[in-house]
Formats: sequence, structure tokens, C-alpha cells
Amino acid sequence: MEDLKLASRNGKDSTVVFVNGVAVGKGFVLIAGPCSVESEEQLLETARFVKAAGAQMLRGGAFKPRTSPYAFQGLGIKALKILELARKETGLPIVTEVIDPRDVAWVSEYVDVLQVGARNMQNFSLLKEVGKINKPILLKRGMNATIQEWLNCAEYVLNAGNPNVILCERGIRTHETYTRNTLDLSAAAAINELSHLPVITDPSHGTGRPSLILPMSLASVACGAAGIIVEVHRNPKEALSDKEQALTHLQFADLAQRVRRLVEQMHDQQPEETWISSNYDRISIE
Amino acid sequence: MEDLKLASRNGKDSTVVFVNGVAVGKGFVLIAGPCSVESEEQLLETARFVKAAGAQMLRGGAFKPRTSPYAFQGLGIKALKILELARKETGLPIVTEVIDPRDVAWVSEYVDVLQVGARNMQNFSLLKEVGKINKPILLKRGMNATIQEWLNCAEYVLNAGNPNVILCERGIRTHETYTRNTLDLSAAAAINELSHLPVITDPSHGTGRPSLILPMSLASVACGAAGIIVEVHRNPKEALSDKEQALTHLQFADLAQRVRRLVEQMHDQQPEETWISSNYDRISIE
Amino acid sequence: MEDLKLASRNGKDSTVVFVNGVAVGKGFVLIAGPCSVESEEQLLETARFVKAAGAQMLRGGAFKPRTSPYAFQGLGIKALKILELARKETGLPIVTEVIDPRDVAWVSEYVDVLQVGARNMQNFSLLKEVGKINKPILLKRGMNATIQEWLNCAEYVLNAGNPNVILCERGIRTHETYTRNTLDLSAAAAINELSHLPVITDPSHGTGRPSLILPMSLASVACGAAGIIVEVHRNPKEALSDKEQALTHLQFADLAQRVRRLVEQMHDQQPEETWISSNYDRISIE
Amino acid sequence: MEDLKLASRNGKDSTVVFVNGVAVGKGFVLIAGPCSVESEEQLLETARFVKAAGAQMLRGGAFKPRTSPYAFQGLGIKALKILELARKETGLPIVTEVIDPRDVAWVSEYVDVLQVGARNMQNFSLLKEVGKINKPILLKRGMNATIQEWLNCAEYVLNAGNPNVILCERGIRTHETYTRNTLDLSAAAAINELSHLPVITDPSHGTGRPSLILPMSLASVACGAAGIIVEVHRNPKEALSDKEQALTHLQFADLAQRVRRLVEQMHDQQPEETWISSNYDRISIE
Repeated sequence: MEDLKLASRNGKDSTVVFVNGVAVGKGFVLIAGPCSVESEEQLLETARFVKAAGAQMLRGGAFKPRTSPYAFQGLGIKALKILELARKETGLPIVTEVIDPRDVAWVSEYVDVLQVGARNMQNFSLLKEVGKINKPILLKRGMNATIQEWLNCAEYVLNAGNPNVILCERGIRTHETYTRNTLDLSAAAAINELSHLPVITDPSHGTGRPSLILPMSLASVACGAAGIIVEVHRNPKEALSDKEQALTHLQFADLAQRVRRLVEQMHDQQPEETWISSNYDRISIE
Repeated sequence: MEDLKLASRNGKDSTVVFVNGVAVGKGFVLIAGPCSVESEEQLLETARFVKAAGAQMLRGGAFKPRTSPYAFQGLGIKALKILELARKETGLPIVTEVIDPRDVAWVSEYVDVLQVGARNMQNFSLLKEVGKINKPILLKRGMNATIQEWLNCAEYVLNAGNPNVILCERGIRTHETYTRNTLDLSAAAAINELSHLPVITDPSHGTGRPSLILPMSLASVACGAAGIIVEVHRNPKEALSDKEQALTHLQFADLAQRVRRLVEQMHDQQPEETWISSNYDRISIE
Repeated sequence: MEDLKLASRNGKDSTVVFVNGVAVGKGFVLIAGPCSVESEEQLLETARFVKAAGAQMLRGGAFKPRTSPYAFQGLGIKALKILELARKETGLPIVTEVIDPRDVAWVSEYVDVLQVGARNMQNFSLLKEVGKINKPILLKRGMNATIQEWLNCAEYVLNAGNPNVILCERGIRTHETYTRNTLDLSAAAAINELSHLPVITDPSHGTGRPSLILPMSLASVACGAAGIIVEVHRNPKEALSDKEQALTHLQFADLAQRVRRLVEQMHDQQPEETWISSNYDRISIE
Repeated sequence: MEDLKLASRNGKDSTVVFVNGVAVGKGFVLIAGPCSVESEEQLLETARFVKAAGAQMLRGGAFKPRTSPYAFQGLGIKALKILELARKETGLPIVTEVIDPRDVAWVSEYVDVLQVGARNMQNFSLLKEVGKINKPILLKRGMNATIQEWLNCAEYVLNAGNPNVILCERGIRTHETYTRNTLDLSAAAAINELSHLPVITDPSHGTGRPSLILPMSLASVACGAAGIIVEVHRNPKEALSDKEQALTHLQFADLAQRVRRLVEQMHDQQPEETWISSNYDRISIE
């Protein structure tokens, strides 16, 4: 863990990453929106809805990393302009993924948080590039990444000069096939002891099933995560990507309400001294 | 899923398994105790403590499945007699593991719940044998078992005549080495939709780290689990098995209090109709 | 590795396990036969064929560990009697699986090698019981077992008094779904350096696809395994278990011929001193 | 598999990728060299040695994807110039990894094969970029990639216009900790039936242990792989990266000799019609 000079907890207070007034790492943040930006109408409709339902940030993919080269690859700059419109109308800060180091600088002009996706967690060129900008980075855990490797990727960004890293547990790949991935909430809890950086979860990719997103969102609150990012679509069946796991507007509204209620109820549930053990020295070194 | 004639949800109400007055599947049940029964003094001290702290059942191993033949294998019948004493004194129902079909009948005379451990999940002889008794069975998920395989093992017990099966998610084996296993809370949530049987979690084996047991216990409440089973030792450093993951008495007391508080707070958080999707037909068939 | 007093290499010569004149651990042994004994006619037909094609032992399941309680569970004692007949006629030693400690003593009267299956690798009661008999044991690796855990299970058998243990790599469960399991040939190679016990492989369960069994059988020869065990059925489509992966008689005949040719060709390929590094001290301790 | 218009076997003859006269996909190709280019002297010494020992291509890292930002990141352009020198002197074609799409065009001027590493398998920007050049691409399988995902990445390159893709199985991440990864030779065999592209293996990363590289190299020949790529260092203990797994010069010489002998012996081992089953339709669609 010597290598985690900047990312490790090491006695530091928890970092709060501010995104246009939204504090990530203080309270619980709800990020919602469609997997992909498909059209102005589609994005704005969902943006208005999730805003009304309590979301504090809007997600929407412009550049989609897809398994097949023939799958919908995202609308690119057109999507960014639509996202800008949505921010203007709703005031919600925008999160979007970037997959090419050449896009980092200019895309960061359009959005508020740049996401580095699971497939690119160890795309070190991309990490160094997002380390040069002054917008917060949402760094997803790779499907097969250890917690230590993940923190090392955060270290790449921090070391390149960008202190605003939000970690996101999005499920690891296991033998289980009922769920799309296995959402590893213990990794979120572990990050809270190993690092000062805020960690959120992605129950949409983590489970791949709408019916499991609600319980895993509530569990994310309970385990100490700093927020969730979920996929919402006005008509999941017609979504151009990840349609199996998108929540309907109504499902999101219910989820947001339940999550908020739990966050308030758990307000006083702070771990005591007795639990703060330095597991720091036990982290495995590959 | 045709094979799950008895274990599948199939529109059935959730089953409540009664253990000497403790209802598993209604509210949230706390099961605690040492990994192994080491001595009368040791067990009674912890039994009294966890009872006072709010545990509703006592766990304690008499027959220990150990990786090495030279490791402590449990006190056997001596342990069962000590467990009986603890029940007499505290009134707590007893959970203990059985690992040999020849022991099922007579061990069930001593205890209230027979546990089938992760390594024996697909020990079909054992499953058939515990299906013949009239005590509840705690069936742990195998480290590499799919949810479907796990439910099929429950089906073995149900089909043999014992309807009182409690499932227990205890962590699956993944690439992550920081945690002992990866506690798959989505599997607990999935069981709630796929089966009518109650499911609890084991954050002790699931994480292998005391500092992670608290957040994962709270997350277990939030995701809809019916309870937790945790390892508690009066002096973890001197435990004869699983000493790295045992909670101290004080840690358990704090955990029990926080869990109780959360259970009360979440009392009204029941999923609505909108979330009840029949994922039944989507379960993967091997 | 202190715990592996009996199973570890520790400078010992490789153990040869003799099965009615067949030397396992010297040369390369071919074990073949149907997954399950289904009828006298079926077994004898395949027994004769695999004998003629070069198999040195016959496999056939009498007690089948099946995921579902409603699947064919094997013919039990009837199957054992059929296996006895096949031995009488062909002279092939018989390998069959035993899944209940209560069956070990009497089943061992019928057959030549008792198999402990992957699901029972850590069924310690069974391991202790097979350690008491004087027939060789075929110990399969559990689907999620580490090499060290597997060797510890061999240690259980050796420690109980039975020195004749043959290890069998049969594939581990990974994220890959194209193959039924992932046949870990490096584990076979590792066993050769970590232990003196002979290790064979099971390309049938390891891949689950006939077309992959041939290349993986040849690779088993090349990596230094002591043999293979493969499933052969006179009419795979009608097999009562594992029909997807059974070889036809003709496929087996071709495989046997190719394997034999390679074994002869590789006869002189013995590793030199330069490769014998003690990796012994690097084995991970959980 | 509809998405694999260009990469799938679909009745096509096996593709042979020519690299400066070396035919990959015909016979068996040996690629060797250090993990990283560390100095002119170091690279040239090893280049001469592996050439003399029978290697047909030279590997050497110029841009190293490292877990930690503080680890040696490679010599960059300086390394490329050293690699150029080595080619001039030995005539060996050069393989080197590229990790940034901005480097593809100019780096391809220096070397003969561009490698896309495991961590970048789904770096789609990089894949599209290497699809535009006219040098062969060595595409490693991601640590957690399914065979289908891997082939889809090859499809990205083919679809972008570059038909010369060599696949490389380099081990997947599993629960096993004795080996660095689990070399999945069945994936190489599967590629031979699913795709017309040549597939080689990397037993160095696949096992992480010199003593296992020899048996897994021989097994690679036997399972039908088109070659291997191994790490060789003049003094492994002083290597700046991957020192645990580098072969010494003498080990490589012995390995090369044994591999060559086996390749000659297996020359006539061609699978017959009986084994050619179209598993094509059974590949899992995510």
C-alpha cells in the first residue's frame, strides 16, 4: 500500500467532492438517467422526471463502450449538446463517460463529471488524461479488479493532479448468472476504511434486474455508500442499450422516496471508535 | 425451474420457520455465538452476553469442517452437551453444524436447528438425511454455487419431508482477496423473489473482517434478509477457529443495537406492487 | 504447507498407485466409460469397446450426485453388480463414485477405485472413511477449490491410513460460459511439483464439449498429467446424465489412438534439473 | 454470434497472419523477449540469445501498463529505437504493446506487431485505431473476458479494416492464488473452432511461475495453439517488471528445444472429420 500515497485513508478525513454544489461524500447522492442519450426529447423527459423525483445529478451516455462494433455506439457530440440543454433546464449536473484520452479535454467542457468506465479502469492513458482536468472523475471498478488495483487507478488520477475522484462499485464478474454482475457492497465498505475518497454504487449494472435494484439501493445506503447511480428510461423496452435493467420513471420515483427515507432514518447510525480498526496493513499486495 | 416444485415462490406467501418460538422469516433474527464450542466456560460466557445484547439464537460448532486434518475438529458430543447447558440457562435455541449423515438423527436431539455448511451444500446424502428430521435446517450457500443450485439443494430437503428450511448467504469465492469471500446480498434479494423460504446472511464468513461485519449486517437488513448469523468470541485472539473474523462482545452489543434500530426504522419499507416482477422465468437453466 | 506432512512433494519420488496391475503415475492411463451405468447391455457394450480401443480402466456411476432431486440418481447396487460383470468380462478395473460415508466399506467390495467427486471434495466425513479402506481413491478437485485445499483433502485420506490417492483435475468454475468449467492444466503441472501423488485430468467435465475433449486430452499428456478420465456413451443423445459431453465410441477410439501416439512420442520429454525449482515455499497460505 | 461477421469461423479456412515472413497460424511460432526494454545492452543480449535458441519474433515492452503510477512505466520511444536496433541485428520481427490510441500510428512505424494488452482488450478507441494500420495486431484476452467478448474485440479491429489479428490467451483471473492467472487452454481450442483467426498463448502471464511455463508451453502445442509468447530475461532477479515469471536464457533454450521437438512429433496429429462439430450455434449470447 506504499503506492497509495494519495488515495489511502492514512488518518485523513473523508474527502467531499463538490459537483456544482452537490456534495458527494456528505449525505447520500442520487444520480439517475438513461444509459444512453437517444434524443433530446427522450433525455429531457427523463431529466425532468428524475429531477422532480429527487435526483441530484443526471447521467447519460454519449460515447458507449459496446461489446459489439455493430451495436449503438452513442450519439457523441450531439448527445453532449442535449445533456447541456438538460442541465440548463433542470440545473442537474451532468455525468457522462469518456472512453478516449483525446476526448477528455473537450468533453469536459460540456459536462460536470467525467466517468471512467469499468472496461477502462486500467486504461492508464485515459487515467492520466482525466488527471489533468479540473472536473470531478467518477471511477468505476473493473469487473475483475481487486480493491487494491482500483485504488491504484484512483492514485493515477490523483497523482496527475486531479484530487476530485469519486469511486463507484458496479459489480464484479462471478460465476453467478442470475444477476448480470455481483454487486460487492463489502468493497464499498472497505473503501470507506482504506481510502478517504467517496464511494457510490451502481445497482443497475451491479444486478442487471430492476427488481433487485431497489433492495440493493437500500443496502447501499445501509453499508455506508455515498450515493447510487441508476439507469432510468421513459420506456425501458425501447431503450437502445441496457434495456433489461432500466427502471421506469415510476420505479425510480418510488426508489428515490424509499432511499431518502432510509437516509434520514440512518442519519444517526455512525460507526463508533470500537469499529475503527486499521485493516490497512492487511490489504494484500499482489 | 420445473425442478423447484417445492422451493420456488410460485405465488406462495413467505414461509415463516419457527424455532422454539423464534419466527424466522418475520421481522429480523439475530443469531450469534462462537465459531466453535471450546469449553463450557467459554460458551456460557458468550451465550449470556449475546442473549443480553439481543441475540435470539445461539450458534456454536461441535463438528468443524476444517481445511486441514490437523486443525481443531471440534469437541463433538462434549460440545453438544455444553450447548444444551447454554440453552437451559439462556433459553436461546441452538444452531449447530452437522457434517455426517450418520450424525443427523442423534445430533438433532440436542439442538434446535441443524446447519448444513457451505462445503456440504451439495452433499446430497446429508441433505436427504436432514430432510427426514423434524427440526429446521439452516442451509448455507456453497462458495461457488449458483442461486439455482442452492435452491435445488433446498428442494432436496423439502422433497425428503422437511419443510423448515432457512437459507443462508455466506459469501461466494471471487477474485477479491481483501475480503475472505464476497457477500452476495443480491442473492438474498433474489431468493426473496424466487422462493418463499426465508434467507439470512452470514457477514462473518462473508467478509472475514470485523470492521466490515457491521456495515454488511446493516445492509442485510436493508436488502430484505430475514436475519444474520455472526461469530462472537469473548477473546477473538485466542479463538480456536476463525479468530480473524470473530466480533468481541462489545462489538456485538453495538452491532445488535444498531441492527435493531434499523429494523424498527425500516418497518414500513415494504416493496410495492410496481416492483414485483416475475423474474421467475428468467432464472438460468444449466 | 506444514499441514501437508504426507501429501507434499518434499523431495519424495513420485508415487505410483497400482490398480489391479495398472500403474497410475507411470506412463499415461486412459480411464473411460459412461457417466452413469444405465443397464447391463449399455455398460457392457461400452466396456468392450473402450477396452478394445485401449482404455485401461472403466468408469461408471452407480450413485449420481445430481443438482436436482428429481434427476436420475443412479442404479445403486444394481449398477455395482453390472460393473462387476464388466470387470469379469473385460478385465478392466472399475472406478465408481461414492457419495455417502455409510457406503464406503461395502461399495469398495465391488470396485477397484473409489471416486470422491468435486462436490464432496471437502466432505471430510467421506474423506476420513475412504481413508480407512485399502482400495485406491480418485480425489477430484472441487469446482472452487484452491490447489492447497485440494492437497489438504488428500492429506485427510493419507492421514486416515490410505496412501493410494490419485488426484483428478476436473475443471474449475469461472466466468466463462462457453465451456462447462475451465480445465486448469496448470494445476496438474503444479501438483507434479507440490506433491508426489499422481494427478490425472477429466477433460469431459472440464470442458463439457466433445470437440474440446480431444485437444485438452492431448494437452493433458503434454503438461505431464498421469492420465485422463473421459465419458463415453454408445449413444450420447440418449444418455441419462451428461449427454452433452459424452464421446461416441468412434470419437473415443480416435482419441485413444492419438493420445497413445503422443504419449510414445513424448516419452523422452523429461524436465531437466534447470526447471526443478522449489516453488514449495511460495504456495499461498489462506 | 451474428455480430461476428468477420471473426467467426463460418466455414472459412484458417487465416495465416504473415509477419515479415513469419507465418502465424501455420506451424508453431515462438515469440520471446523481456517484459520491458530496460537498456540497449539488456535487450540486445536477450535478442541474440532467443534468436539463437529458435525464437522467431522478439517481444519487448516500451509502454508498460502498470498497476501503480509509481512503477516503472517503460522507456517509451527510447525503447522503440532499441527494438529497432535489435531487429536490424537479429532480423527478428518486433512485438510491442501500445496503450494509447494516439501512439498507434507512429509506434507502428517502429515495430512489426502491435499488441493490445489484456487490460485494454475492451478499450474500443484503441481497437478502432489499430484497425486502421496495416501491421498485424496481437490481441490479448482480458482477464475476465468471455471468449465471445474477446472475439467481438477482434471484430472491432477487423471491421476497422485490419484483417491481421492474432489472438492471445494469457490466463484468466480465477480464485486460484498459486498461479498468477489460470491459463485457459480450452479457450485456445475453442477459438480454433469458433474463428479462423490464429491463437497463441502466453504461459508466462498465464502461470506467473517459471516452473509451470514449460509444461504449459508443451500443452499449448498439444491443444492446437499457433504459438507461444514468453518472457525471457538475462537476469530475472533484476528485471524491472515481472521478474517472478521471467525465464532465464538457459531455461528458454531448453523450452524452445522441447517445444520444437513436440511440434515435429505432432505434425501428423490433425483432427478428423468426426471431431468437427459445429459448436457455433451453442456459443452463449449475453
